[in-house]
Amino acid sequence: MARIGKAASKLFNKKGYLETSIADIASAVRMSKGGIFYYFPTKNEILYFILTNYMDLVLEGLEEDLKKFDGSFSRIQFIISRHLELYTNNMDEAKTLLHEAHLLPPKYLKAINEKEKKYFQIVAAELSDFLGNNVPKDRLTAITFSLFGICNWIYSWYNPKGSLTHHELSEIIYNIFSKGVSSWKL
Amino acid sequence: MARIGKAASKLFNKKGYLETSIADIASAVRMSKGGIFYYFPTKNEILYFILTNYMDLVLEGLEEDLKKFDGSFSRIQFIISRHLELYTNNMDEAKTLLHEAHLLPPKYLKAINEKEKKYFQIVAAELSDFLGNNVPKDRLTAITFSLFGICNWIYSWYNPKGSLTHHELSEIIYNIFSKGVSSWKL
Repeated sequence: MARIGKAASKLFNKKGYLETSIADIASAVRMSKGGIFYYFPTKNEILYFILTNYMDLVLEGLEEDLKKFDGSFSRIQFIISRHLELYTNNMDEAKTLLHEAHLLPPKYLKAINEKEKKYFQIVAAELSDFLGNNVPKDRLTAITFSLFGICNWIYSWYNPKGSLTHHELSEIIYNIFSKGVSSWKL
Repeated sequence: MARIGKAASKLFNKKGYLETSIADIASAVRMSKGGIFYYFPTKNEILYFILTNYMDLVLEGLEEDLKKFDGSFSRIQFIISRHLELYTNNMDEAKTLLHEAHLLPPKYLKAINEKEKKYFQIVAAELSDFLGNNVPKDRLTAITFSLFGICNWIYSWYNPKGSLTHHELSEIIYNIFSKGVSSWKL
Protein backbone atom coordinates (compact mmCIF):
# COMPACT_ATOMS: atom_id res chain seq x y z
CA MET A 1 0.00 0.00 0.00
CA ALA A 2 2.81 2.40 0.91
CA ARG A 3 4.40 1.71 -2.48
CA ILE A 4 1.13 2.51 -4.29
CA GLY A 5 0.74 5.71 -2.24
CA LYS A 6 4.29 6.83 -3.00
CA ALA A 7 3.94 6.24 -6.75
CA ALA A 8 0.49 7.85 -6.81
CA SER A 9 1.69 10.99 -4.99
CA LYS A 10 4.49 11.35 -7.56
CA LEU A 11 1.97 11.11 -10.40
CA PHE A 12 -0.50 13.48 -8.71
CA ASN A 13 2.25 16.11 -8.55
CA LYS A 14 3.41 15.60 -12.07
CA LYS A 15 0.04 15.32 -13.84
CA GLY A 16 -2.49 16.50 -11.26
CA TYR A 17 -4.90 14.31 -9.30
CA LEU A 18 -7.80 14.59 -11.73
CA GLU A 19 -5.63 13.81 -14.74
CA THR A 20 -4.05 10.73 -13.16
CA SER A 21 -5.86 7.45 -13.83
CA ILE A 22 -5.78 4.20 -11.86
CA ALA A 23 -4.17 2.74 -15.00
CA ASP A 24 -1.32 5.29 -14.68
CA ILE A 25 -0.79 4.33 -11.05
CA ALA A 26 -0.96 0.59 -11.83
CA SER A 27 1.60 1.00 -14.56
CA ALA A 28 3.95 2.99 -12.26
CA VAL A 29 3.99 0.19 -9.67
CA ARG A 30 3.82 -2.61 -12.28
CA MET A 31 0.53 -3.97 -11.01
CA SER A 32 -2.77 -4.66 -12.72
CA LYS A 33 -5.64 -2.22 -12.24
CA GLY A 34 -7.39 -5.03 -10.37
CA GLY A 35 -4.39 -5.24 -8.04
CA ILE A 36 -4.78 -1.55 -7.18
CA PHE A 37 -8.53 -1.91 -6.69
CA TYR A 38 -7.88 -4.75 -4.24
CA TYR A 39 -6.23 -2.22 -1.90
CA PHE A 40 -8.08 0.95 -2.90
CA PRO A 41 -11.68 0.74 -4.15
CA THR A 42 -11.47 4.30 -5.59
CA LYS A 43 -8.86 6.92 -6.47
CA ASN A 44 -10.23 9.03 -3.60
CA GLU A 45 -9.09 6.33 -1.17
CA ILE A 46 -5.55 6.58 -2.53
CA LEU A 47 -5.52 10.35 -2.10
CA TYR A 48 -6.90 10.03 1.42
CA PHE A 49 -4.36 7.32 2.28
CA ILE A 50 -1.48 9.58 1.17
CA LEU A 51 -2.72 12.63 3.03
CA THR A 52 -3.79 10.97 6.26
CA ASN A 53 -0.42 9.19 6.46
CA TYR A 54 1.41 12.44 5.87
CA MET A 55 -0.58 14.25 8.57
CA ASP A 56 0.08 11.33 10.94
CA LEU A 57 3.81 11.78 10.31
CA VAL A 58 3.42 15.49 11.05
CA LEU A 59 1.62 14.83 14.35
CA GLU A 60 3.32 11.63 15.46
CA GLY A 61 5.31 12.15 18.63
CA LEU A 62 5.26 15.94 18.21
CA GLU A 63 3.86 16.73 21.64
CA GLU A 64 6.18 14.23 23.36
CA ASP A 65 9.20 15.58 21.47
CA LEU A 66 8.34 19.17 22.37
CA LYS A 67 8.40 18.27 26.06
CA LYS A 68 12.10 17.43 25.75
CA PHE A 69 13.01 21.06 25.09
CA ASP A 70 13.44 23.72 27.71
CA GLY A 71 12.04 27.07 26.71
CA SER A 72 9.60 27.98 23.97
CA PHE A 73 12.43 29.47 21.90
CA SER A 74 14.05 26.10 21.27
CA ARG A 75 10.66 24.44 20.83
CA ILE A 76 9.82 26.80 17.98
CA GLN A 77 13.22 26.15 16.45
CA PHE A 78 12.49 22.43 16.68
CA ILE A 79 9.04 22.84 15.07
CA ILE A 80 10.55 24.69 12.10
CA SER A 81 13.37 22.24 11.51
CA ARG A 82 11.04 19.25 11.92
CA HIS A 83 8.52 20.78 9.48
CA LEU A 84 11.23 21.29 6.86
CA GLU A 85 12.71 17.86 7.38
CA LEU A 86 9.30 16.20 6.94
CA TYR A 87 8.76 18.21 3.80
CA THR A 88 12.20 17.42 2.40
CA ASN A 89 11.74 13.70 3.01
CA ASN A 90 8.15 13.58 1.71
CA MET A 91 7.95 16.24 -0.98
CA ASP A 92 5.42 14.44 -3.14
CA GLU A 93 3.06 13.82 -0.25
CA ALA A 94 3.45 17.38 1.08
CA LYS A 95 2.78 18.91 -2.33
CA THR A 96 -0.21 16.63 -2.83
CA LEU A 97 -1.58 17.88 0.50
CA LEU A 98 -1.22 21.48 -0.59
CA HIS A 99 -2.53 21.10 -4.12
CA GLU A 100 -5.08 18.33 -4.09
CA ALA A 101 -6.60 18.02 -0.61
CA HIS A 102 -9.58 20.19 -1.62
CA LEU A 103 -10.59 17.49 -4.12
CA LEU A 104 -11.27 14.93 -1.35
CA PRO A 105 -14.88 13.96 -0.64
CA PRO A 106 -16.22 15.98 2.34
CA LYS A 107 -15.91 13.28 5.04
CA TYR A 108 -12.26 12.64 4.10
CA LEU A 109 -11.46 16.32 3.81
CA LYS A 110 -12.94 16.84 7.26
CA ALA A 111 -10.67 14.17 8.74
CA ILE A 112 -7.58 15.78 7.16
CA ASN A 113 -8.68 19.25 8.24
CA GLU A 114 -9.03 18.00 11.82
CA LYS A 115 -5.45 16.76 11.81
CA GLU A 116 -4.27 20.07 10.32
CA LYS A 117 -6.22 21.88 13.02
CA LYS A 118 -4.53 19.81 15.71
CA TYR A 119 -1.12 20.73 14.28
CA PHE A 120 -2.14 24.38 14.15
CA GLN A 121 -3.24 24.26 17.79
CA ILE A 122 0.00 22.69 19.00
CA VAL A 123 2.08 25.31 17.19
CA ALA A 124 -0.19 28.18 18.23
CA ALA A 125 0.05 27.07 21.88
CA GLU A 126 3.87 27.14 21.68
CA LEU A 127 3.80 30.57 20.09
CA SER A 128 1.37 31.85 22.69
CA ASP A 129 3.68 30.56 25.41
CA PHE A 130 6.66 32.17 23.69
CA LEU A 131 4.87 35.51 23.43
CA GLY A 132 3.84 35.59 27.07
CA ASN A 133 0.28 34.25 26.74
CA ASN A 134 -1.48 37.55 26.29
CA VAL A 135 -1.52 38.12 22.58
CA PRO A 136 -5.12 38.62 21.33
CA LYS A 137 -6.47 35.52 19.57
CA ASP A 138 -6.74 37.05 16.08
CA ARG A 139 -3.10 38.20 16.26
CA LEU A 140 -1.92 34.81 17.49
CA THR A 141 -3.74 33.24 14.53
CA ALA A 142 -2.02 35.66 12.13
CA ILE A 143 1.39 34.95 13.70
CA THR A 144 0.91 31.18 13.58
CA PHE A 145 -0.21 31.22 9.96
CA SER A 146 2.71 33.50 9.11
CA LEU A 147 5.04 30.79 10.34
CA PHE A 148 3.13 28.13 8.38
CA GLY A 149 3.24 30.43 5.37
CA ILE A 150 7.02 30.72 5.39
CA CYS A 151 7.42 26.97 5.98
CA ASN A 152 4.82 25.77 3.48
CA TRP A 153 5.71 28.20 0.73
CA ILE A 154 9.04 26.44 0.31
CA TYR A 155 7.15 23.87 -1.82
CA SER A 156 6.99 26.50 -4.55
CA TRP A 157 10.70 27.28 -4.73
CA TYR A 158 12.99 25.21 -2.50
CA ASN A 159 15.09 22.45 -4.02
CA PRO A 160 16.65 20.31 -1.25
CA LYS A 161 19.37 19.37 -3.73
CA GLY A 162 20.37 23.02 -4.25
CA SER A 163 22.98 25.04 -2.38
CA LEU A 164 20.99 25.41 0.87
CA THR A 165 20.54 22.30 3.03
CA HIS A 166 17.27 21.99 4.91
CA HIS A 167 19.22 22.64 8.12
CA GLU A 168 20.50 25.95 6.73
CA LEU A 169 17.05 26.89 5.47
CA SER A 170 15.53 26.05 8.89
CA GLU A 171 18.00 28.40 10.49
CA ILE A 172 17.23 31.20 8.04
CA ILE A 173 13.50 30.78 8.63
CA TYR A 174 13.96 30.65 12.38
CA ASN A 175 16.02 33.82 12.28
CA ILE A 176 13.48 35.68 10.16
CA PHE A 177 10.59 34.53 12.27
CA SER A 178 12.16 35.15 15.67
CA LYS A 179 14.41 38.15 15.07
CA GLY A 180 13.29 39.57 11.75
CA VAL A 181 15.36 40.49 8.73
CA SER A 182 16.56 43.63 10.50
CA SER A 183 18.86 41.41 12.54
CA TRP A 184 20.84 40.79 9.33
CA LYS A 185 21.11 44.45 8.43
CA LEU A 186 24.71 45.50 8.18
CA MET B 1 -14.55 40.44 -20.98
CA ALA B 2 -13.73 41.63 -17.46
CA ARG B 3 -17.19 40.46 -16.35
CA ILE B 4 -16.60 37.01 -17.83
CA GLY B 5 -13.17 36.83 -16.14
CA LYS B 6 -14.60 37.85 -12.77
CA ALA B 7 -17.40 35.28 -12.90
CA ALA B 8 -15.05 32.57 -14.19
CA SER B 9 -12.50 33.16 -11.41
CA LYS B 10 -15.30 32.82 -8.83
CA LEU B 11 -16.35 29.50 -10.37
CA PHE B 12 -12.76 28.25 -10.68
CA ASN B 13 -12.32 28.78 -6.94
CA LYS B 14 -15.58 27.21 -5.99
CA LYS B 15 -15.53 24.18 -8.29
CA GLY B 16 -11.97 24.02 -9.63
CA TYR B 17 -10.82 24.97 -13.11
CA LEU B 18 -11.12 21.49 -14.62
CA GLU B 19 -14.61 20.96 -13.21
CA THR B 20 -15.93 24.31 -14.48
CA SER B 21 -17.50 24.23 -17.95
CA ILE B 22 -18.01 27.04 -20.44
CA ALA B 23 -21.72 26.40 -19.88
CA ASP B 24 -21.27 27.15 -16.14
CA ILE B 25 -19.50 30.40 -16.97
CA ALA B 26 -22.08 31.37 -19.58
CA SER B 27 -24.87 30.76 -17.11
CA ALA B 28 -23.12 32.84 -14.39
CA VAL B 29 -22.92 35.88 -16.69
CA ARG B 30 -26.28 35.15 -18.40
CA MET B 31 -24.75 34.78 -21.83
CA SER B 32 -24.95 32.00 -24.41
CA LYS B 33 -21.99 29.64 -24.77
CA GLY B 34 -21.52 31.19 -28.24
CA GLY B 35 -21.30 34.61 -26.59
CA ILE B 36 -18.43 33.38 -24.40
CA PHE B 37 -16.67 31.75 -27.37
CA TYR B 38 -16.86 35.05 -29.22
CA TYR B 39 -14.48 36.54 -26.64
CA PHE B 40 -12.59 33.41 -25.59
CA PRO B 41 -12.06 30.58 -28.09
CA THR B 42 -11.13 28.16 -25.24
CA LYS B 43 -11.35 27.89 -21.45
CA ASN B 44 -7.55 28.21 -21.34
CA GLU B 45 -7.88 31.71 -22.76
CA ILE B 46 -10.20 32.67 -19.92
CA LEU B 47 -7.75 31.35 -17.31
CA TYR B 48 -4.88 33.17 -18.99
CA PHE B 49 -6.90 36.39 -19.24
CA ILE B 50 -7.63 36.28 -15.48
CA LEU B 51 -4.05 35.54 -14.48
CA THR B 52 -2.28 37.92 -16.84
CA ASN B 53 -4.59 40.74 -15.73
CA TYR B 54 -3.93 39.96 -12.10
CA MET B 55 -0.17 39.93 -12.61
CA ASP B 56 -0.44 43.22 -14.50
CA LEU B 57 -2.21 44.71 -11.49
CA VAL B 58 0.60 43.40 -9.28
CA LEU B 59 3.30 44.96 -11.47
CA GLU B 60 1.53 48.10 -12.65
CA GLY B 61 3.21 51.21 -11.34
CA LEU B 62 5.09 49.24 -8.67
CA GLU B 63 8.55 50.50 -9.57
CA GLU B 64 7.35 54.09 -9.93
CA ASP B 65 5.50 53.91 -6.59
CA LEU B 66 8.56 52.50 -4.82
CA LYS B 67 10.61 55.50 -5.94
CA LYS B 68 8.33 57.76 -3.89
CA PHE B 69 9.55 56.24 -0.63
CA ASP B 70 12.72 57.16 1.18
CA GLY B 71 14.54 54.19 2.67
CA SER B 72 14.17 50.51 1.98
CA PHE B 73 12.35 50.04 5.31
CA SER B 74 9.32 51.97 4.18
CA ARG B 75 9.50 50.46 0.69
CA ILE B 76 9.19 46.97 2.16
CA GLN B 77 6.30 48.12 4.31
CA PHE B 78 4.65 49.48 1.16
CA ILE B 79 5.23 46.21 -0.75
CA ILE B 80 3.55 44.18 2.02
CA SER B 81 0.54 46.45 2.36
CA ARG B 82 0.12 46.70 -1.42
CA HIS B 83 0.34 42.91 -1.79
CA LEU B 84 -2.36 42.41 0.84
CA GLU B 85 -4.59 45.09 -0.58
CA LEU B 86 -4.38 43.57 -4.07
CA TYR B 87 -5.20 40.19 -2.61
CA THR B 88 -8.12 41.51 -0.56
CA ASN B 89 -9.62 43.30 -3.57
CA ASN B 90 -9.07 40.40 -5.99
CA MET B 91 -9.35 37.25 -3.90
CA ASP B 92 -10.82 35.08 -6.64
CA GLU B 93 -8.13 36.03 -9.12
CA ALA B 94 -5.33 35.63 -6.55
CA LYS B 95 -6.57 32.21 -5.47
CA THR B 96 -6.94 31.15 -9.11
CA LEU B 97 -3.31 32.15 -9.66
CA LEU B 98 -2.17 30.05 -6.73
CA HIS B 99 -4.31 26.98 -7.45
CA GLU B 100 -4.78 26.76 -11.18
CA ALA B 101 -1.87 28.47 -12.95
CA HIS B 102 -0.06 25.13 -13.41
CA LEU B 103 -2.94 23.97 -15.63
CA LEU B 104 -2.16 26.63 -18.27
CA PRO B 105 -0.67 25.50 -21.60
CA PRO B 106 3.15 25.95 -21.55
CA LYS B 107 3.36 29.17 -23.59
CA TYR B 108 0.78 30.87 -21.35
CA LEU B 109 2.34 29.53 -18.18
CA LYS B 110 5.69 30.88 -19.31
CA ALA B 111 4.23 34.36 -19.79
CA ILE B 112 2.73 34.31 -16.28
CA ASN B 113 5.94 32.94 -14.78
CA GLU B 114 7.88 35.78 -16.38
CA LYS B 115 5.64 38.34 -14.72
CA GLU B 116 5.98 36.53 -11.39
CA LYS B 117 9.74 36.52 -11.87
CA LYS B 118 9.74 40.25 -12.49
CA TYR B 119 7.79 40.80 -9.26
CA PHE B 120 10.22 38.53 -7.42
CA GLN B 121 13.18 40.52 -8.76
CA ILE B 122 11.75 43.87 -7.76
CA VAL B 123 11.07 42.66 -4.21
CA ALA B 124 14.42 40.84 -3.94
CA ALA B 125 16.25 44.01 -5.06
CA GLU B 126 14.52 46.00 -2.30
CA LEU B 127 15.40 43.37 0.27
CA SER B 128 18.99 43.25 -0.92
CA ASP B 129 19.18 47.01 -0.57
CA PHE B 130 17.63 46.81 2.89
CA LEU B 131 20.11 44.15 3.99
CA GLY B 132 23.17 46.06 2.80
CA ASN B 133 23.66 44.39 -0.59
CA ASN B 134 25.96 41.64 0.55
CA VAL B 135 23.70 38.78 1.43
CA PRO B 136 24.62 35.65 -0.60
CA LYS B 137 22.21 35.00 -3.46
CA ASP B 138 20.73 31.75 -2.10
CA ARG B 139 19.98 33.44 1.24
CA LEU B 140 18.41 36.45 -0.46
CA THR B 141 16.20 34.02 -2.40
CA ALA B 142 15.18 32.28 0.83
CA ILE B 143 14.43 35.62 2.50
CA THR B 144 12.40 36.91 -0.44
CA PHE B 145 10.34 33.73 -0.70
CA SER B 146 9.81 33.80 3.07
CA LEU B 147 8.13 37.17 2.64
CA PHE B 148 6.06 35.89 -0.28
CA GLY B 149 5.20 32.84 1.81
CA ILE B 150 3.77 34.88 4.67
CA CYS B 151 1.88 37.15 2.26
CA ASN B 152 0.54 34.46 -0.05
CA TRP B 153 -0.38 31.98 2.65
CA ILE B 154 -3.11 34.35 3.82
CA TYR B 155 -5.26 32.93 1.01
CA SER B 156 -5.61 29.78 3.10
CA TRP B 157 -6.87 31.42 6.27
CA TYR B 158 -7.47 35.17 6.12
CA ASN B 159 -10.99 36.52 5.89
CA PRO B 160 -10.92 40.25 5.10
CA LYS B 161 -14.38 40.53 6.72
CA GLY B 162 -13.08 39.13 10.03
CA SER B 163 -11.72 41.05 13.01
CA LEU B 164 -8.37 42.01 11.41
CA THR B 165 -8.44 44.61 8.63
CA HIS B 166 -5.92 44.18 5.86
CA HIS B 167 -4.12 47.25 7.23
CA GLU B 168 -3.74 45.59 10.63
CA LEU B 169 -2.62 42.32 9.04
CA SER B 170 -0.05 44.20 6.90
CA GLU B 171 1.36 45.72 10.05
CA ILE B 172 1.56 42.35 11.82
CA ILE B 173 3.32 40.81 8.83
CA TYR B 174 5.69 43.74 8.53
CA ASN B 175 6.55 43.46 12.21
CA ILE B 176 7.19 39.72 12.01
CA PHE B 177 9.26 40.05 8.89
CA SER B 178 11.33 43.05 9.93
CA LYS B 179 11.66 42.61 13.69
CA GLY B 180 10.62 39.03 14.38
CA VAL B 181 8.13 37.72 16.88
CA SER B 182 10.67 38.27 19.68
CA SER B 183 9.84 41.97 19.46
CA TRP B 184 6.38 41.12 20.86
CA LYS B 185 7.72 39.06 23.70
CA LEU B 186 6.57 40.47 27.02
